[in-house]
Amino acid sequence: MNVEIVNTGSELLLGRVLNTHQQWLCRRFSDLGHEVVRQVTVADTAGAIRQAIQEALGRADLVVTTGGLGPTSDDFTREEVAGLLGCKLVANAAIHHHIEEYFAKRKRPRPARTSVEELVPEGAQIFLNSHGTAPGLALCVNPNLFALSRKPAWLVMLPGPPRELHPMFNESVAPFLHRHFPQEAFACLTLRSAGVGESKVQERIEEPLHQLVCEGLVVGYCARPGAVDVRLVARGGQAGPLVQEAARIVQELLGPSLYGRDDDELEDIVVTQLRHRKQTLALAESCTGGLLAHRITNIPGASEVFRGCAVTYANAAKSRLLGVDDGLMVSKGAVSEETARAMATGAQALFSTNYALSITGVAGPAGGTLATPVGTVFMALASPNGVSVHHYLNAWDRQTFKAVTTFQALDLLRKALT
Amino acid sequence: MNVEIVNTGSELLLGRVLNTHQQWLCRRFSDLGHEVVRQVTVADTAGAIRQAIQEALGRADLVVTTGGLGPTSDDFTREEVAGLLGCKLVANAAIHHHIEEYFAKRKRPRPARTSVEELVPEGAQIFLNSHGTAPGLALCVNPNLFALSRKPAWLVMLPGPPRELHPMFNESVAPFLHRHFPQEAFACLTLRSAGVGESKVQERIEEPLHQLVCEGLVVGYCARPGAVDVRLVARGGQAGPLVQEAARIVQELLGPSLYGRDDDELEDIVVTQLRHRKQTLALAESCTGGLLAHRITNIPGASEVFRGCAVTYANAAKSRLLGVDDGLMVSKGAVSEETARAMATGAQALFSTNYALSITGVAGPAGGTLATPVGTVFMALASPNGVSVHHYLNAWDRQTFKAVTTFQALDLLRKALT
Repeated sequence: MNVEIVNTGSELLLGRVLNTHQQWLCRRFSDLGHEVVRQVTVADTAGAIRQAIQEALGRADLVVTTGGLGPTSDDFTREEVAGLLGCKLVANAAIHHHIEEYFAKRKRPRPARTSVEELVPEGAQIFLNSHGTAPGLALCVNPNLFALSRKPAWLVMLPGPPRELHPMFNESVAPFLHRHFPQEAFACLTLRSAGVGESKVQERIEEPLHQLVCEGLVVGYCARPGAVDVRLVARGGQAGPLVQEAARIVQELLGPSLYGRDDDELEDIVVTQLRHRKQTLALAESCTGGLLAHRITNIPGASEVFRGCAVTYANAAKSRLLGVDDGLMVSKGAVSEETARAMATGAQALFSTNYALSITGVAGPAGGTLATPVGTVFMALASPNGVSVHHYLNAWDRQTFKAVTTFQALDLLRKALT
Repeated sequence: MNVEIVNTGSELLLGRVLNTHQQWLCRRFSDLGHEVVRQVTVADTAGAIRQAIQEALGRADLVVTTGGLGPTSDDFTREEVAGLLGCKLVANAAIHHHIEEYFAKRKRPRPARTSVEELVPEGAQIFLNSHGTAPGLALCVNPNLFALSRKPAWLVMLPGPPRELHPMFNESVAPFLHRHFPQEAFACLTLRSAGVGESKVQERIEEPLHQLVCEGLVVGYCARPGAVDVRLVARGGQAGPLVQEAARIVQELLGPSLYGRDDDELEDIVVTQLRHRKQTLALAESCTGGLLAHRITNIPGASEVFRGCAVTYANAAKSRLLGVDDGLMVSKGAVSEETARAMATGAQALFSTNYALSITGVAGPAGGTLATPVGTVFMALASPNGVSVHHYLNAWDRQTFKAVTTFQALDLLRKALT
């Protein structure tokens, strides 16, 4: 089955609002075993909406629209669909009852404009809106009647607000799909790697996965700074075993550079490991300026294992809080192996923790020298087994530098904990 | 001019990655006075990419593609465009030189696969990638030669990673647009306010702006937690004066709640003010876990004014680093006016700064009590003129809580500095 999504909304094409429907709907469809082959966004104008729906009905088995069902003057979808398919809009008693009840329950007068929400194209199935007033609508577009599509297609119209659309999809659209579309077996697994470039990852796994690709496996790559996701997808009866076998091969070849699956984040894994071991963590950050502490404290329950962080931007703070020797910073530099080491052991002592991670470096754009150019990073991990120091050159813009450097620090801690 | 955007990426249609290109590009185009009329996402397959580009070229004056220019096997855009337009792919010396230099600078061997990035459709303009290897490409599609479009159209191909695409757009695509497309007079100004709700903002300015709206001004609102942007837009000969007059009225009515224009961020304003005054800042964070320090240190030059931050998540850290009295935390609570005050004066003394900001609160989801429910925040500002303490209830999810709370803290400091 081919699914196409039509998002309507001028605010989307003016770039004032982020379109989150695309990801949310695509993910739900693929998890249910259906494939979205195209997504399009058009403005809230009658012509643009009608044209996009007409084109999509000419290709897809199922077209899903979002938005344009509300009561305001820029809501066109209902009228344009009726016009396009040549069917009448008729008042629906169930919707009338639902909207009356909606406002009565909230003790608010019903706005007159909501009456248009009771009108539906003749023959439409109705999905009542458990979190709002505008219903969802489903229409079977018969090629004999409408001559728009080569084959029978379904048109499903959903309201725009995410807090109305999400429950409506789960409560009504998923069962609707189950009734009308046989589900194809589908498997999707993302393996997340750190510290290896995109080309290198592909070089290592391409040839060994070749046989499985011939059998229907689809391999995708998604590179982020410092990390590469490998996506393994298959459809049909052998989907599960194919993806599992591919995952086994990738795990064997990329081994310790793989840190997680699907939506796993390094900070999640590190906090979970520390909680499991009942061990504690402290941080000492210079060039990353608190981002590492921010990432750790994004995880609910971090307070069980995370004691604190000394963000020592000034050298005076490094000596005062962490006891880094002033002479050492003068002789070796504030960005050096020795300073990183002293910051980590200083933080371990200051916060009385099992582990302490320190980072010192040059984020740029200014502050680089010949010996320590912009992007230079030293990080140290003080653990119950001693201290290790690591050196990187992360020559990125300031924000990417901070993201990549904290990612590397979290990966260092992950490897020590697993 | 009609612009269409074609986003390629199977990860987008599988719902594995959020498409942020749509909003970012649409916003930049509309700020430059051009209108995006359609955005489409297709999978990383040769056929889907070719079809989407072909259709878009048949309608638009400018088609922009994102993604599919990298070195891996699911990168098809370059080849499909050459095939569609019937032009050869030729190796380009400038790109070769750029990629060689890119890897040499990072002291990494150049992966063999990156050689495909040197190939460009014959006749293409090249935008070198200042943050990566794959270049952007621009091709003029002449209807006499290609018989695809009714009129001459431009096809601009940009790389997928946002940290490559954003600077390339600003450095190369914006000047390219300026050269090739006459710009309609267009003015757009966003005024950013903090601490006033969206309906309240609209109530105050709607009526006073009415006359200008009749003359063609378009007013838009964008609410974020804790903040509201007011967008003033006009087109045509009077665009500039209309928007300026509207801005004057809004400034008069919203006064001190306005903190900046367009993309100004509070952290920018605060760091600039401190640099200007040659004054220094320290922070003490508990529930925000380092995010405030992260935001301050995102600003280049922050090191001139920012000395450091004590992220004191555990109570023991609050007493050890900041000298907060243990008895006080027991009697008044770690989340209290008194603890916030002691944290701020402690940080001011520890880092020897003019200003110190402290935050203590309950981020949730767990940890709330009847007296201090989830969302409770106390923050204190120690300045040369004494200490002020402020109380908020920010009942949001954990990440929004951190964003809103640090925004309020920055706004507090802004008001003290201006």
